[in-house]
Amino acid sequence: MSSYTAPLKDMQFVLNELAGLGKVAALPGYEEATTDVVEAILDESAKFTGGVLDPLNYSGDQEGAKWADKSVTMPKGFKEAYRQFVDNGWNALSGNPEHGGQGLPKVVSAAVQEMWKSANISFSLCPLLTLGAIEALELAGNDAQKAMYLPNMISGNWTGTMNITEPQAGSDLAAIRSRAVPQGDGTYRIFGQKIFITYGDHDMAENTIHLVLARTPDAPEGVKGISLFVVPKFMVNADGSLGERNDVYCVSIEHKLGIHASPTCVMVHGDNGGAIGTLVGQENQGLKYMFVMMNAARFAVGLEGLAIAERAYQHAVAYARDRVQGRAIEGSASGVAIIKHPDIRRMLMLMRANVEAMRALAYSVAAAHDAAARHPDAAERAQNQAYVDLMIPVVKGWSTETGNEMSYLGVQVHGGMGFIEETGAAQYMRDARITTIYEGTTGIQANDLMGRKIAREGGATIKAVLGTMQQTRSELAQQAGAEFAAIAAALGRGIEALQQATDYIVANYGSDVRAVAAGAVPFLRLMGVVSGGWMMARAALAAQGRIAGGDADPFYPAKIATAHFYADHVMAAAAGLAQEVVQGGASALKLDEAMF
Amino acid sequence: MSSYTAPLKDMQFVLNELAGLGKVAALPGYEEATTDVVEAILDESAKFTGGVLDPLNYSGDQEGAKWADKSVTMPKGFKEAYRQFVDNGWNALSGNPEHGGQGLPKVVSAAVQEMWKSANISFSLCPLLTLGAIEALELAGNDAQKAMYLPNMISGNWTGTMNITEPQAGSDLAAIRSRAVPQGDGTYRIFGQKIFITYGDHDMAENTIHLVLARTPDAPEGVKGISLFVVPKFMVNADGSLGERNDVYCVSIEHKLGIHASPTCVMVHGDNGGAIGTLVGQENQGLKYMFVMMNAARFAVGLEGLAIAERAYQHAVAYARDRVQGRAIEGSASGVAIIKHPDIRRMLMLMRANVEAMRALAYSVAAAHDAAARHPDAAERAQNQAYVDLMIPVVKGWSTETGNEMSYLGVQVHGGMGFIEETGAAQYMRDARITTIYEGTTGIQANDLMGRKIAREGGATIKAVLGTMQQTRSELAQQAGAEFAAIAAALGRGIEALQQATDYIVANYGSDVRAVAAGAVPFLRLMGVVSGGWMMARAALAAQGRIAGGDADPFYPAKIATAHFYADHVMAAAAGLAQEVVQGGASALKLDEAMF
Repeated sequence: MSSYTAPLKDMQFVLNELAGLGKVAALPGYEEATTDVVEAILDESAKFTGGVLDPLNYSGDQEGAKWADKSVTMPKGFKEAYRQFVDNGWNALSGNPEHGGQGLPKVVSAAVQEMWKSANISFSLCPLLTLGAIEALELAGNDAQKAMYLPNMISGNWTGTMNITEPQAGSDLAAIRSRAVPQGDGTYRIFGQKIFITYGDHDMAENTIHLVLARTPDAPEGVKGISLFVVPKFMVNADGSLGERNDVYCVSIEHKLGIHASPTCVMVHGDNGGAIGTLVGQENQGLKYMFVMMNAARFAVGLEGLAIAERAYQHAVAYARDRVQGRAIEGSASGVAIIKHPDIRRMLMLMRANVEAMRALAYSVAAAHDAAARHPDAAERAQNQAYVDLMIPVVKGWSTETGNEMSYLGVQVHGGMGFIEETGAAQYMRDARITTIYEGTTGIQANDLMGRKIAREGGATIKAVLGTMQQTRSELAQQAGAEFAAIAAALGRGIEALQQATDYIVANYGSDVRAVAAGAVPFLRLMGVVSGGWMMARAALAAQGRIAGGDADPFYPAKIATAHFYADHVMAAAAGLAQEVVQGGASALKLDEAMF
Repeated sequence: MSSYTAPLKDMQFVLNELAGLGKVAALPGYEEATTDVVEAILDESAKFTGGVLDPLNYSGDQEGAKWADKSVTMPKGFKEAYRQFVDNGWNALSGNPEHGGQGLPKVVSAAVQEMWKSANISFSLCPLLTLGAIEALELAGNDAQKAMYLPNMISGNWTGTMNITEPQAGSDLAAIRSRAVPQGDGTYRIFGQKIFITYGDHDMAENTIHLVLARTPDAPEGVKGISLFVVPKFMVNADGSLGERNDVYCVSIEHKLGIHASPTCVMVHGDNGGAIGTLVGQENQGLKYMFVMMNAARFAVGLEGLAIAERAYQHAVAYARDRVQGRAIEGSASGVAIIKHPDIRRMLMLMRANVEAMRALAYSVAAAHDAAARHPDAAERAQNQAYVDLMIPVVKGWSTETGNEMSYLGVQVHGGMGFIEETGAAQYMRDARITTIYEGTTGIQANDLMGRKIAREGGATIKAVLGTMQQTRSELAQQAGAEFAAIAAALGRGIEALQQATDYIVANYGSDVRAVAAGAVPFLRLMGVVSGGWMMARAALAAQGRIAGGDADPFYPAKIATAHFYADHVMAAAAGLAQEVVQGGASALKLDEAMF
C-alpha cells in the first residue's frame, strides 16, 4: 500500500501562480494569509493527513462504521484521529474568528481540504457536513443559536449534519414531508424520517447538531413551504453543558458500495413525542438557505473528485514503478518496470494531467469566492461571484466524473492486482462513485449550468470567460516551440467548440428546452475539459515564465509537458462533445418511452 | 430488483439480419442450426437464465464463495443450478458431437452465452473455463486424453481450469517458473504456485481438470520453453471412475471487488510429492496452444462486456420507469417518472445504443468464426479468419471498456439508490471491472490490434473492412430522411478518422513503435466506436428494408432511432480519438520517469 504524500509543490504553484494567493492576501481580513504562513499550514496539514488520516483509510473501509442500538461506532482509530484533528485546530481553519475560527480564505482551506479528502474521504465527510451546518447557522441563525452552537461546531467538538433527503424526496425537495409543530414557547417538535444522512450518528464527538428541513402546519405546498430547523442530538443547557437526549435517532445505516467508514444514516425524528428544534431564519425560507450552503457543499464535493484522482494517481505511480512485467515494446530490454510501457505511461499522464487541471480550476474558483466575499469594489465582487456561480457546477460535475474515470484507470494500471481489495486501488474507485451523485447528480449540475447559469442571463458570464480564454490563447501564440503551438491550437479548438455549444444553448433553451437539456451533461463535460485546458495553458505560460527567468527546477518543464499532453489527449474530445450538444437533442428523445 | 429478460427480439434480429445465420446454417455440419431450431434454443435459454441463474446473482454476490480446509464452497443454490445447467445440456451446446456435444455454431452459442453472462457472470465463468480447457484438449490432446476427459467435460460433469498466471508472471508468460518433471512412465510431476485461477476449486462438480503451463527440466528460457499439461483434481481410472486425490490444492481465494461468487484461487501443485499430469501436445509448444484458446477466451470476455451492459440497462430502465421524482423540465407536469427527464433518457439511450452495437459486432465475429472453420472455399475461410483475428481484440477491449462505462451509467440512473448495494446496480459495475483486465488487459488487446493485426500486414485486413464500411455508407446515402443523412455523415466521419489513424500506424509502427503504441488504446476505442457505428448503420438499413416491406413492428423504427442516436452521440468521439492516436505519441512519452 502506497502512502499519501500531499502534492505540496503543485499546490503551491497553483495557489501562487494561477489562483493569485497574493491578491487574496491583499483582501481585507485575509492579511494573515501570506505565502509563508500558507506554506507552513500546508506543511503541517501534509504531515497530519499523511501520518494520521491516510493510514486509517483502508482499515476504515474494511471494518466500516457499525450500527447497534440506535448508535454508530466508528472503525478503529477514527475517534482518536478526530480528537487530534480538533485539537490541532484543523476544523476551525476557515471558521469565523468571532466564534473561535481562524478565518483563513477559502483558497487556503481548499488546499487543506483536498488533503483530507485524498487521505481519507470517509473521515473528511464529517467536517464537510459540520462546515455546511456552520454555514447555515452563520447565514440565518439568530444570535442565541450562534452563541449556543457555533463555538463548539467551529472547534469541531460538536459535529453537524444536513437532514434533507426523504425516501420520496431526493433531488426533488418539493416532496419533503417531515413536519415541524410549534410548541408556543419558541421551539418546535419535529417528526419524520430522513435518509442518506452522512454522519447522522457516530462516536467521535459529544454532540451532533442536525440542520433539518421540515414543514410547519400551514406551510404552502412545494418548495415554498420548507423551513430549516436546528435539532441537537443532546439539548444544550443555558450554561453550555449538555442536557437531555433529544428525540432523534439513527435507526439503521446503509450497506454501500464505498465510503464504508462514513456512516450513512436513516434518522427518525419524533418517534417518542417529537425532536425539539428551533427555527433557523424565517419560516418557509429553508430552501433559500439550503441553496447558499449547497454551493459550498458542491464545491467541496468537486474537491473530492480531484482528491481521489490525486490519491489514485499516487497509488498507481508507486505500483507502476515497482511492478516488473514484460519486455519493452521496442525490444531492447526484458523484465522492465511497467511504467516503461507506453500505455501505462499514457494512463499515468492522463491521471496527472486531469488532476492538475482540476486542481487549478478548483483553486481559481476558491480564490474568486474570496474576492466575491471581500473585495472592496462592488463590481469586482459581482464579477467574481458570477464566475463562482458559473463554475460551481463545473467543479462539482466535471471533477467528480473525472475523479471516477481516473480512479477507474488507477485500477487498470494495477492489472489483476487492481481487482483485489487488499491492493487498495479498488477502494478509490468505489469511494469515488458517490461523488457524481450526492449534493446533486451530474445531470442536476448540468441543468443548473445550462439553465440558471447560462441561458437565464443570455450567456453573459460564459462569454466573458471565453474572452479571457482567448487572451490566454493569444499569449500562447507568442511562445516559441511545438509544445506551445499544440497547446494554443487545442485551446483554440476548445474555445470554438464551447462557443458553438453556448450559442446553441442560448438560442434554443427557450424554444426547445427538452432537446437542449438532453445535451446538458455533454455540455458540462465540454465546459470542464476546456476550462481545464485553459488552466493548463495558463500553467504552461507561468512555468515558461519561470524557466525564462532562469529557474532550473524540473517542475516547470514537467508542467509544460503535462499541459501539452492535456492539449493532445483531453482537449481532443472537445469538438465531439460540442457536436453531441448541438446535434444530439432530437435523437436522444426520439424513442418512444414504451420501447425501452 | 429487476429480473433478467433475455433480449430475444434483438438477438434474433442480429442473428438473422446482420450476422447471417442463414449462411451459417448452410455450412457443412451446421445444417441443424435453422432459424426455427435456434429460436427454440434461445427461448429455452431465456427461461433457464431468467428463471434459474439471474435469481442467484445478487445472493451469490452477497454470500460469496467460501474457502476452508483447502476447499471452496459455493454460495447457496449454485450447486443445484449447475446440476440443472448440465442436465439441460447447456454446457454441451457447442461441443464436438464425437464426444457428446451438440455441435452448434459459435454464432448460436454466442447468443446463449450472452444470456448466461447477463444473468450471472460469476456462474458463467465456470463453463467459460471448462470450454477453454475442452478447446485445449481438442486442439492438442492425444486420443487417450480426449477419451479420458472430453465426454465428462463436454457434458459439464467435470469442469476445467486454466492454470497460467504466477505472481511474477501475469501478462508476461515468459516469466513462468512452475516445473514439470518427467517420471519415465509418460507422466510428469508438477510443482509450482499458480494465482488468479478461476474456479480452481468448487463443489459443483465431482472432478476438475486443470490445464497447467509449466517448464520441463531442460526447457529453453522464456516463452519457448513452456509446455501444457493436464492435471486432474482426482485421478481417473482406466474404467473412467475417479481414483486418488491429486496433489493440487486451493490454498486460498482472493477478496475481490466483484464476481464474488466466482472463486479466484491460489493453487499449489506438488507440496506433497508432485501433482501428476500428462503432457498435452508437444513439449515447449504450450504457448502456441494457449494463443489459440486465448482467442476464444477473449471473445467470451468481450461478450461479458456486452452482457453486463445489457443487464445494467434493463435494471436502469426498470428503475427509471418506476421512480417518480421532480417535475418535467418543460414545466408541464410534476411528480414524473425519471425516464421523462432528458438526461436520464440520454443515459438510457447511450446504454441501449452501445449494447446493440456491441451485440451486432460480436455476433458478426462469431459468424465469421463459423465460416472460417467450415466454409468449403479456402479463400472464404481465410478472409473470414482475417476478420476474426482483426476483430477479436476489438470485441474484447472495446466491449469490456464500454461494459464498464455502461454499468457506471446504470448506477448513475439510480441516483443515491445506485450507491446502496441492495439496489443491485453497483454489483454490475463491480463485476464488470475485471473484464478489461483478465484474458489480457485493454492495453494488451490494443497492442495486439495495432501490432500483429494491422502493422504486421501493412493494414491489409483493416483496409478491406474499411472498404466494406464505405459500401454501407453508400447504401445509407440512398435512403431518404434526416435520420439516414445523420447516420451516413457520422459513418463517413468515422471511416475517415479510422483511415487516418490506420495510415499513421502503418507508416510509423516500424520507425517509432513507442510513440505509436502510446495511442494503442485510443485506437482500439476508435476501432470499436466506428465498427459499432457500422453495425448500427447496417441494422438501420435492415430495419428500413423491413419497414419498406410493410412490416409495422415498432421494433424497426426503434432500431433506426437508436442507430441515429449512436451516430450523434457515440460516433462524435471518433475524430478526437484519431487525433489522440496521430498527434499524441510524443506528449504521452515526454515526461521524465522520475517526475511522476
